[in-house]
Amino acid sequence: VQVLIIGAAGMLGRKLAEAMAARGIAGAPVTDLRLADVIAPPVPAGFSGKVQTLAVDLAAEGAAAALVADLPAVIFHLAAVVSGEAEADFDKGYAVNLDATRALFEAIRAAGGGYRPRVVFTSSAAVFGPPFPEVIGDDFRTTPLTSYGTQKAIGELLLNDYSRRGFLDGVGLRLPTICIRPGTPNRAASGFFSNILREPLAGLPAVLPVRDTLRHWFASPRAAVGFLQHAAAIDTAPLGFRRSLMMPGLSATVADQIEALRRVAGQQAVDLIRLAPDPVIAAIVETWAQDYDPARARALGFQAESSFDQIIAVHLEDELGRPHAQAR
Amino acid sequence: VQVLIIGAAGMLGRKLAEAMAARGIAGAPVTDLRLADVIAPPVPAGFSGKVQTLAVDLAAEGAAAALVADLPAVIFHLAAVVSGEAEADFDKGYAVNLDATRALFEAIRAAGGGYRPRVVFTSSAAVFGPPFPEVIGDDFRTTPLTSYGTQKAIGELLLNDYSRRGFLDGVGLRLPTICIRPGTPNRAASGFFSNILREPLAGLPAVLPVRDTLRHWFASPRAAVGFLQHAAAIDTAPLGFRRSLMMPGLSATVADQIEALRRVAGQQAVDLIRLAPDPVIAAIVETWAQDYDPARARALGFQAESSFDQIIAVHLEDELGRPHAQAR
Repeated sequence: VQVLIIGAAGMLGRKLAEAMAARGIAGAPVTDLRLADVIAPPVPAGFSGKVQTLAVDLAAEGAAAALVADLPAVIFHLAAVVSGEAEADFDKGYAVNLDATRALFEAIRAAGGGYRPRVVFTSSAAVFGPPFPEVIGDDFRTTPLTSYGTQKAIGELLLNDYSRRGFLDGVGLRLPTICIRPGTPNRAASGFFSNILREPLAGLPAVLPVRDTLRHWFASPRAAVGFLQHAAAIDTAPLGFRRSLMMPGLSATVADQIEALRRVAGQQAVDLIRLAPDPVIAAIVETWAQDYDPARARALGFQAESSFDQIIAVHLEDELGRPHAQAR
Repeated sequence: VQVLIIGAAGMLGRKLAEAMAARGIAGAPVTDLRLADVIAPPVPAGFSGKVQTLAVDLAAEGAAAALVADLPAVIFHLAAVVSGEAEADFDKGYAVNLDATRALFEAIRAAGGGYRPRVVFTSSAAVFGPPFPEVIGDDFRTTPLTSYGTQKAIGELLLNDYSRRGFLDGVGLRLPTICIRPGTPNRAASGFFSNILREPLAGLPAVLPVRDTLRHWFASPRAAVGFLQHAAAIDTAPLGFRRSLMMPGLSATVADQIEALRRVAGQQAVDLIRLAPDPVIAAIVETWAQDYDPARARALGFQAESSFDQIIAVHLEDELGRPHAQAR
């Protein structure tokens, strides 16, 4: 299978490239891996197939056409400007999250000759907006209250229409907040959900900018990579032309996170978290939904963690090399 | 008030221009009327204010900027490629219904200096897609199954985001099927709903391409112009940033239409309708919803007809110059 990953230098993109190199798609090995991002993505270690890395701006004239020129069977489109940046820079958000996405879909359509790749598009729960019911079902309206959510909702509409017209075979994944996100903070307002676990687990201080009763929806990076791999292989017929799915996750409060941290790493880890309310972060995060019933995705076999102990264990195993029974 | 109507050569645009010239907005006279379309729109008779007509393609480079250069306080954006044509010509549909709409919003944003016009955007029930509940409420999901519906749903998302960011003050109107549409058929699949009344009322034959038990959602051209005028004047604060509203209408079957025709014009008029099933038209129309509960719009004072006798009476009065008590 020939696979193209756009956004392959990001956290999820790198992990996805490693998973593709190691395990392929539904048992079929990846023979040709093309990795694109605005900076050259790393090459996964130990991959024996053909691999090519490209530093390219998807929004640039001709870039999308060049990326799909040799007709990859599976395209993962993960490239995006995150929510905080899309809100701060209106033009950049629309250029990357809308125009580049449309340029990709148009390049696929223009390739012609019956080319109809599987396109896995990362969307977001930000397509929803308040007021929310207690639990959000698959039929909930998409009324975003951020430019990022607007751009993702538009991407979903385009994915549906291009799929319906037979130009591509799309699957959109509304990802939960990824936790524990490794490495350094990005500009997403959700960063603290990872910081308050990752930093104390490494013996470092962390700041909690919101109340600990706040409830939110989470999945580990490992689960997110699993969603992407699964989306590349599923039969899309049951989706009809509603191609975007809320992904499974864990509904938990910040207090639940902290209790799991205490169980795994003790009170001294919890003591590293300092409460420092940030009204800007709080104003964004308080508009997010708390719980979902992703029935369509579960029926199609998508799976996530069921406790924060599990999510922490995945981090210890995948990021810190500390094998942990809970992670299985 | 300075008013710009884009799409002013179309059926609704012409009627709206006449209404603006005659009655203004919420009692305030229109002092300056700018009428734009791909062909030069007609000038409303007897208008004493300043009027300018422009034959311009909104999608052309610089066209949108020129249209908003003298900062009209109210902009009606009615220009669109209809559903049948947007499905037949993918590129044209996206160019007119998406790109030109976005070009207009961008030109307004670029004008700067605190300019924040009221923008009234005509959307459509085509933003919805099956499966439908018996009655569609204001919170129903937007999952279109046509390219036209996709483009309108994207326009609504942009209208919300540009309103939220303070670039414009948008109101989107999801119009019912307009009936009785005067003049000659356009490429909309809904044309027969008007044909089966308009033609027999003029003593001419008409073709019914679908079963007469089909139920649909209607308003007269006069009601539609009323929606547009009302949308130009309402307080938008109660809308929040969900700026598009399903407009009130009449839920009626084709048989209801025919019975009203019989009451107004007798059996000889009904005898002019010939049943000739058209599977292409039927396939499109059968995916449309039948009934709505437009509670938000009604609460804001939008009003439509409550019987087909009334809708026919409006046609007799407005199009055929035959004053009719039922039309009041």
